[in-house]
Parts: sequence; structure tokens; C-alpha cells
Amino acid sequence: MTKKNKSALSEHTGISSPEITSSNAIETLKAKRKARIDTNTLVSSILNKNIAALSRAITLVESENHKHLEQANTIIKACLPHANKSIRIGITGVPGVGKSTFIEAFGKHLTSQGKRIAILAIDPTSSITKGSILGDKTRMETLAKDENAFIRPSASGTSLGGVARKTRESIILCEAAGFDVILIETLGVGQSETTVHSMIDFFLLLKLAGAGDELQGIKRGIIEMADAIAINKADGENLKQAKLAKVEFNRALHLYPPKPSQWSPKVMLCSALQNEGIKDIWKLILEYKTKTTENNYFETNRTKQNKFWLIQTIENELKRSFFNKKEIKEALEAQLKLIETNKTTPFAAADYLLSLNKSLQ
Amino acid sequence: MTKKNKSALSEHTGISSPEITSSNAIETLKAKRKARIDTNTLVSSILNKNIAALSRAITLVESENHKHLEQANTIIKACLPHANKSIRIGITGVPGVGKSTFIEAFGKHLTSQGKRIAILAIDPTSSITKGSILGDKTRMETLAKDENAFIRPSASGTSLGGVARKTRESIILCEAAGFDVILIETLGVGQSETTVHSMIDFFLLLKLAGAGDELQGIKRGIIEMADAIAINKADGENLKQAKLAKVEFNRALHLYPPKPSQWSPKVMLCSALQNEGIKDIWKLILEYKTKTTENNYFETNRTKQNKFWLIQTIENELKRSFFNKKEIKEALEAQLKLIETNKTTPFAAADYLLSLNKSLQ
Repeated sequence: MTKKNKSALSEHTGISSPEITSSNAIETLKAKRKARIDTNTLVSSILNKNIAALSRAITLVESENHKHLEQANTIIKACLPHANKSIRIGITGVPGVGKSTFIEAFGKHLTSQGKRIAILAIDPTSSITKGSILGDKTRMETLAKDENAFIRPSASGTSLGGVARKTRESIILCEAAGFDVILIETLGVGQSETTVHSMIDFFLLLKLAGAGDELQGIKRGIIEMADAIAINKADGENLKQAKLAKVEFNRALHLYPPKPSQWSPKVMLCSALQNEGIKDIWKLILEYKTKTTENNYFETNRTKQNKFWLIQTIENELKRSFFNKKEIKEALEAQLKLIETNKTTPFAAADYLLSLNKSLQ
Repeated sequence: MTKKNKSALSEHTGISSPEITSSNAIETLKAKRKARIDTNTLVSSILNKNIAALSRAITLVESENHKHLEQANTIIKACLPHANKSIRIGITGVPGVGKSTFIEAFGKHLTSQGKRIAILAIDPTSSITKGSILGDKTRMETLAKDENAFIRPSASGTSLGGVARKTRESIILCEAAGFDVILIETLGVGQSETTVHSMIDFFLLLKLAGAGDELQGIKRGIIEMADAIAINKADGENLKQAKLAKVEFNRALHLYPPKPSQWSPKVMLCSALQNEGIKDIWKLILEYKTKTTENNYFETNRTKQNKFWLIQTIENELKRSFFNKKEIKEALEAQLKLIETNKTTPFAAADYLLSLNKSLQ
């Protein structure tokens, strides 16, 4: 105690207590207790619709840190019984189709109906090269301020599989946090549509009249996956052309065989900018939910999706753990050189690498 | 020696020679020597264009027996330096398009030019449910009797990967046996086109005028893969319609971006039955070979294909060896049940199975 400190509230320093155990062990104990408290607190906060807690949990899901992922798994497990109650909507469309404006109008309509909407994005490449889609919240200014809306940019990562896993786990967290509608945005220019399609209930394709990219949509199977096509910017001088496009898309949709959901995809007109047609699209999605709940497709499809993801995750991990081994990487390089000079067949090279892998285990 | 046997040519039986080693060991030695001789003989016979030897080697490739496969690998390795000199042509088209008639006419044209042609087929499902395509050689009666033609039905097997491997190895054997042209037929109704495309130099799509299956072809990317579209049965009353179809397909082809081969796909008319247009298709394929040899695409594409097959084979085997384990099979069943009742996430289930797999190694 220093002389300067004369307050009655001051304490004697006393002697320091002896160390009862190593300081390391104490730190470990403290950390464990902290993590346990955090996990429990996080889960109950999420279930209490606390957005900050939800954000933090998603950050854990997205982490590359092993301990974070362990904690994330515990949280997800605790959230699981409270999940699955939303409708999951996939939304895609090429850049320029007005996705942000549409999501803003759609989201505002939902929150005005007392719904809570979470918006996630999936696009592995954009998150690296151009910053993630949705990263710029200013594109959805009003919605970003709405307390019943939660906007989360795309998880980063180079592999679609990795990003997809993170998005799927985030969906569970958002559902546990009481969001009624989960919207998953994708960029409309890659393989990500198929990935998104395997984690959603309803797939909405945004189009422009006369954009002339129908062949691309058919080729990549996007039109085949759509439960509804919304022709956006159907306003002013565009309206006439949009109506023509509606007829054409309806014709195109008839070329496809009936869906297992027994749902006939619909073509809608809308103008996100003028806030027209948005209500009808939401009504259509509700119709879809009623119909597919009645015929049991809604549930069986989700189970099917979960099984697909189980297999997918295993396959990705088998590949990753094989090709990431240092010895395999080196041997693969050598075998590829032999292939280039036609000194081996791909099958002999594969057999060699597979045997090497066995000897490493 | 019995009394009955009085010929001067008869021999005394003598005493049996003592066993110098266990009979087992002798059998093993004999078998090894036999296999060695067989392998060497087979290889030199194949290189001497002996069809019976080629057939026997392909049978070894197609065997499920481990020893046969080992022998097959040795043979392929020995054949490899003599392979790669053919042009590999993929041919597809829906049933009814006249594939057999076309192959017969095309093959006869080639053999009349002094070429030797081998015809393989790839179609895993058909080989089980309907007997393999090409199985019925009577459909190519003239060609089947031609000593410069070799017709081999599709390898059996349920997995496309397995059948594909067998076909690719058979290609090497056929090339070592001096075949200038390898034709690989596929049924035109499944995923097998993409598989075939990854093992050929030139892809020929057979079509009928007005068959109305263009959308299917676009959807499955078959039209995009084609280096030429031949509209068959362009004779008699069909001719006018075939000419119209040619214009339409030419238009459709222009919608695709340029190919890495720098080859612009052509649309041709032919009548296999009337033996018309067949020569022109062969000329076109030779033009393709000249062009892609000059710009180096022919070689780089084959190397790329080989690398693709290396990775593909490894991935297939990683999956096969994981999912075929008894313990994994049982645990997977259990995890799938948990998924059905929403008691676990696909990712937690995957992690569990992957850990189980590690503990089994």
C-alpha cells in the first residue's frame, strides 16, 4: 500500500496467494469455463432472437479455427430442435437483373407483414475477387435498418463445398433465431445455383424481358430448377415486352417434365423499383408451401437434401484429405509428368497414388 | 505297364520321381511361368494385329478377377508405347437415329480405304437391362465379317466409372493392335456422353430431321460437345426436311462460344442406308485432325483427358473404398435414420462417419 492512497475504501495488498497449481492449468480451466458459458449464452441468446448472438455464431461457423468450429458444432446441435420452421427461398439472376432492389422490396413487404427475414448469399468466387455479393449493405439501405431483417454477406472461401456448408449451417442458426423466411441469394453465373437448389424449398429466378440469355439458363439447368420466374423491371416502356417474355417463358416451361413436387412453375411480372407484383410473388410462394406441405413433398425434399449433403460432405472431405497430403502432392506432380510424356496410363498412375496413400495411413 | 499294351511305342511306367518340393510350389511356378508366357505372347500377338489376342486381352481388362487385372495392367503397360496413333471418334444419337446402319456404312468406307477400325461401346445400364449395345453383331452384318474391323460390345458393369475405365484401356489395346480409327458408340440417353467426350478426339452427333429433341441435346450439353452433327436418313421424302434441319442446327451451333480446339462444328447430311454423305463425314474428320494437329490441340487435349482420368479414378476409388466398408455401411444407415428424424445435421453425421473411418484404418 502506498502512502498516497488514504481512502477508507482502499485495501491492503496483503501477500500474494501461493500458486495452488500451474498457471497454465488455470488458464485452460478459465478458457474452458468461458467457452462453455459463451456457448450456452450464445444458444439462449439466439433462441431469444438476439441478432448480435446470431452474428457471432455465424462467425464461428465461418471460422477456419478448429476450436471455433467445435464450438459452432455444439451451438448448431443445440439449435437444431428449434430450426426447420422457415421457408427457404433461393433467388438467382444475372447481374443487372435488379436482385438487390428486388430483395429490398420483397424483404420490406415481408417485414410489413410481421415476418422476419434473413438474407444469406452464396458465391465462393465473388467473395474473393469482387468482394462478396450483399457485402455492400448500402444496396439494401432500408432493409439493412429493419430490425426484422438480417443481412449476412457470403461466407468467404474458395471451395463451393466449403461455402455451401457454412451457408447451410447458417440457415439452421437463422431459423433457430426465429426467422420465418430465409432468402439465399446467388449470382446467377456459375455452378452455385445447383448448390443453392439443394438447400432451399423454393427457387425463384429473376429475369429481364429480351435479355436473350434463355439458352444459358436452359443449358445450365437453371430454368428447369425454377419454381417461379419473375420478370423484373416490368414497368413503363418495358411492360409490353415483359408480357411477351412471360408468354415465351411459359411456353419454355411446358417443355419440361412435371416436377416431383407436383408444382407447375409460374411466370410472374414485377417491378421491384415500383414495388409492383412483389405481393403476388410472396402469395405464390405461400401457395407453393401449402401445396407441397399437403402432398408431403416439403418434408421429404428437406430430408432428401440432408442426405445429399451428408454424402457430399463426406466425398469432399475424402478428396481434400487425399490431395492435401504432402507426399501425395509430390507424387501426383511426378505422375502427371509421366502422363504428359505418355509413360503411364491414368489408371496405372491412379493405382500407384492410391497404394502410396494406403502406405501413409 | 499292362500286358495288353504290346506296341514298341509303349513305355515302361518306371517309378514315379520323388517330390523335390511341395506340389503347391510347383503349381505356383507353373502358373507364374504360364502367365508370363501368356502375357508376353499376348503382347507380341496384339502388336502383330492378332484379333484373338486383342479380344483375350480386353477380356482380361474387363475381368473382375484381381490376377487378371494385374496381367491386364502389364499388357497395357507394354502396349502403351505402341498406342495413341489412332483417331478416336465418339458417336452418339438417340435410339432410332440409325446408329448401327451408320457405323456399318462408315466402317465399310474406312476399310475400303485400307483403314482398320475398332468399334467399342460404352453404356453401363444397357449392358444389364437390355443386353449391351453392339451386342447384336447381326445389326452390322457386313462389318462383322470384315477382317479389318473389330467390333466389341460394351463392357458390363453397373458403374459408369468402371465401364469407362475398361473402355479407355481397351482403346489402348486396340491402338497397339494397329487400328487407325477407334469408334466409341454411346446410346445418347444418359450421362455417358460426357464420359465418352473425355476419351475421344472427335465427337459426332447423329440426328434426325424434325425429331424435336433439340432441347434435350442442349440441356445435357451434347450439342455443345459435338464437333459435327450428321442428320441421318436425309433421303427421299426426308431430304427437304433434313435440309431445313441443317439450317436450324447451324443457327443453334452459332449460339455457342468458340471451342478451345478452334474448330467450328459442322452440320452434315447423310443417308447411311443409301450410303450417301458418309465419305464427306470421314473427310471432315480428317480435316479436323489436320487442323487440331497443326494447332497442337489434338495432343494437349489427349494429355488433358489423361489427367482428368487420373483424378477421376482416384476420386471414384476413394468413394468406393469408403462406402464399401461394412462398418461404414452400418453406421451410415444409422446416421441416415437420425437425419430423417432431424436428430443430427448432415455435417455432424459426416464428421462422425469420417472419424469412424479414421479409427478403422
